[in-house]
Amino acid sequence: MRDFIYHTPTKVFFGKDTHKEIGKIVSDYGYRNIMLQYGQGSIKKSGLYDAVMASLAEYGIHVVEMGGVEPNPKLSFVREAVKVAKEHKVEMILAVGGGSVLDSSKYTAAGTLTDCDPWDFPTGKAQVEEALPVGCILTIAAAGSEMSSSAVITNTELNMKRGFNSEHIRCKFAIMNPELTYSVSRYQTACGVVDIMAHTMERYFLPFEPTDLTDRIAESVLKATIAAGATLMENPNDYDARANMMWASSVSHNGLTGCGRANVLPVHQLEHALSGEYDEIAHGAGLALIFPAWAKYIYKHNIPRFAQFARRVWECTQEDNEAAALAGIEKMAEYFKAIGMPSSLADFGLDESCIDRLSELCTFGKQRVIQSYIEMDFGVIKDIFGLCL
Amino acid sequence: MRDFIYHTPTKVFFGKDTHKEIGKIVSDYGYRNIMLQYGQGSIKKSGLYDAVMASLAEYGIHVVEMGGVEPNPKLSFVREAVKVAKEHKVEMILAVGGGSVLDSSKYTAAGTLTDCDPWDFPTGKAQVEEALPVGCILTIAAAGSEMSSSAVITNTELNMKRGFNSEHIRCKFAIMNPELTYSVSRYQTACGVVDIMAHTMERYFLPFEPTDLTDRIAESVLKATIAAGATLMENPNDYDARANMMWASSVSHNGLTGCGRANVLPVHQLEHALSGEYDEIAHGAGLALIFPAWAKYIYKHNIPRFAQFARRVWECTQEDNEAAALAGIEKMAEYFKAIGMPSSLADFGLDESCIDRLSELCTFGKQRVIQSYIEMDFGVIKDIFGLCL
Repeated sequence: MRDFIYHTPTKVFFGKDTHKEIGKIVSDYGYRNIMLQYGQGSIKKSGLYDAVMASLAEYGIHVVEMGGVEPNPKLSFVREAVKVAKEHKVEMILAVGGGSVLDSSKYTAAGTLTDCDPWDFPTGKAQVEEALPVGCILTIAAAGSEMSSSAVITNTELNMKRGFNSEHIRCKFAIMNPELTYSVSRYQTACGVVDIMAHTMERYFLPFEPTDLTDRIAESVLKATIAAGATLMENPNDYDARANMMWASSVSHNGLTGCGRANVLPVHQLEHALSGEYDEIAHGAGLALIFPAWAKYIYKHNIPRFAQFARRVWECTQEDNEAAALAGIEKMAEYFKAIGMPSSLADFGLDESCIDRLSELCTFGKQRVIQSYIEMDFGVIKDIFGLCL
Repeated sequence: MRDFIYHTPTKVFFGKDTHKEIGKIVSDYGYRNIMLQYGQGSIKKSGLYDAVMASLAEYGIHVVEMGGVEPNPKLSFVREAVKVAKEHKVEMILAVGGGSVLDSSKYTAAGTLTDCDPWDFPTGKAQVEEALPVGCILTIAAAGSEMSSSAVITNTELNMKRGFNSEHIRCKFAIMNPELTYSVSRYQTACGVVDIMAHTMERYFLPFEPTDLTDRIAESVLKATIAAGATLMENPNDYDARANMMWASSVSHNGLTGCGRANVLPVHQLEHALSGEYDEIAHGAGLALIFPAWAKYIYKHNIPRFAQFARRVWECTQEDNEAAALAGIEKMAEYFKAIGMPSSLADFGLDESCIDRLSELCTFGKQRVIQSYIEMDFGVIKDIFGLCL
């Protein structure tokens, strides 16, 4: 087992009606002047916006609004938000939404306390030394951003989607009411299931380490997510399935599924190229397409690991390790398809002509090699995208 | 699933040689004047004391020493430590040891910032409003006190062992080097295995809640602990087994295995009466004796739950739920015995004459009823102790 640091200071308020406590929670932390970020207005239709504003008003919290965060949130929005946050001297950022709103809020929080451009964080030109506190009311179970140290943003000028990690941007608190996710569409729910599974599997499939407990916790997250996803395809208002999925989203990405293991997310890097280039592609859908292709390409470099995955998560019974490994990958691909996820680039209306461009983006113009079981360079990445056809 | 608050702010530094960083870590938090608590001197023999003092000296940290914490730590020691901490105006308590040193340190931390007697916390006469920060270097994987909100102390005047919970006493940081546990004896290692399993099972066996993810994480902790325990009986210097067990000790008791479930520890209450009365009995050994007896008495009130435990944790294959449930309890009892734990009161040299007294202690003189699947009153508790004969 590798050495590790584990630190998940985010305070989670989980359950029904927890969002109605937002005024008290913000007030208890002592913040009086906050920025509220949210997305395209669905929180206004659902009544969540009104409930949040009423609670904040009750406790006399001053609110600077920045609505309009887009899916695959944009750097331009963050730059504007940073400007506004500085002007109004806000003390914290409250994200009401899913991963996109959270990522935008985290970038804003880090950008506000520096003179650097927020794009300097993912490019490594600047380090995050501090950030405004971020709190959230989560409305989609997927990204795990509510407890993670990471944030991802899209630079539309460069057609690039890039993330960075910093302990400074972990949420101070996260309010999670599973009922708020009832309105998430079947398709977006499935995307969330894939994202949660991917966060877990990325770490699980890194080169072998004897991390028995971490392995088993990862398998737990996968099994619970698979079960919740299947239930929700039939009954989107199943409270316990929504609750298990929501909690899985946090546990999958708060560090727990990576304790004692390496921490890189190779498949995410490929997907960021895809949804960075094609804004209409949802992150989870992209992952559902690429993960099985990556696994089929890479499994030979660690057959016992893939066999363990097959047996413990998918209950495959093949005695031969390679046969089990392949059966497990097949089960994963079938499951993704069964919950309505794409299984080929053609499902996005794309053909092989996009592959060079995606592989270029993924390697920053053949400059970057992504670590996985093998070094994934331009050629390897092209081959993996080729398996997505 | 029930509503819950999850907050585990303890920063964990896990791995080889992490204890040598203690000076830097304390210094980074800004503490200059600390109290060091430790046990009966084993850290002096092992060289850990010297390493810790050298690192603290290197960073110019002033240290007030309070060595001599006993197993089943005593209220009298805590009262003395509180006096010393106040006199020296220490800024934090550093616990170097296992659960006993941690519990003593946590009581001291809470006691130092109040004029109340520390015994007022478990009796409910006083609430913990604040506490000095506590950090630890863990030397025994067992109690989970390094990330938990609880502490237990023994009042020798009253022959009572009592605990309390407060978010204020969670450790600020925990340094966990699995190598420091190589020297833990086979017997104490087995006691630790039982304690970790008990912390997990206590929550797992509370009345049914649809907490699929929490269930599966609990089962992961159990399986990893069982495997690590078996390995360590053969090879006490197996790093990965020590590491998995150490991490399991934290995860079992930091809140994760209880998310969405009720949170009472009924079997612990029975054991506290036992090791409170008989100081020579180790907490884990007491739990190993009482847990199977409690399970045999109580399983009929939730047969499906005990059957799930049997199938998922012990791989029992009985189709009939009750047969599986009983087989699972039997496997647990056999495992405890196999790792050298007692299986009857006679193993401690006790007979039925102690049962009335233990049941009295447990119910505070027939005043208290302990919640479990059923209300455990004096009569029920007597029956359960009777099954320990």
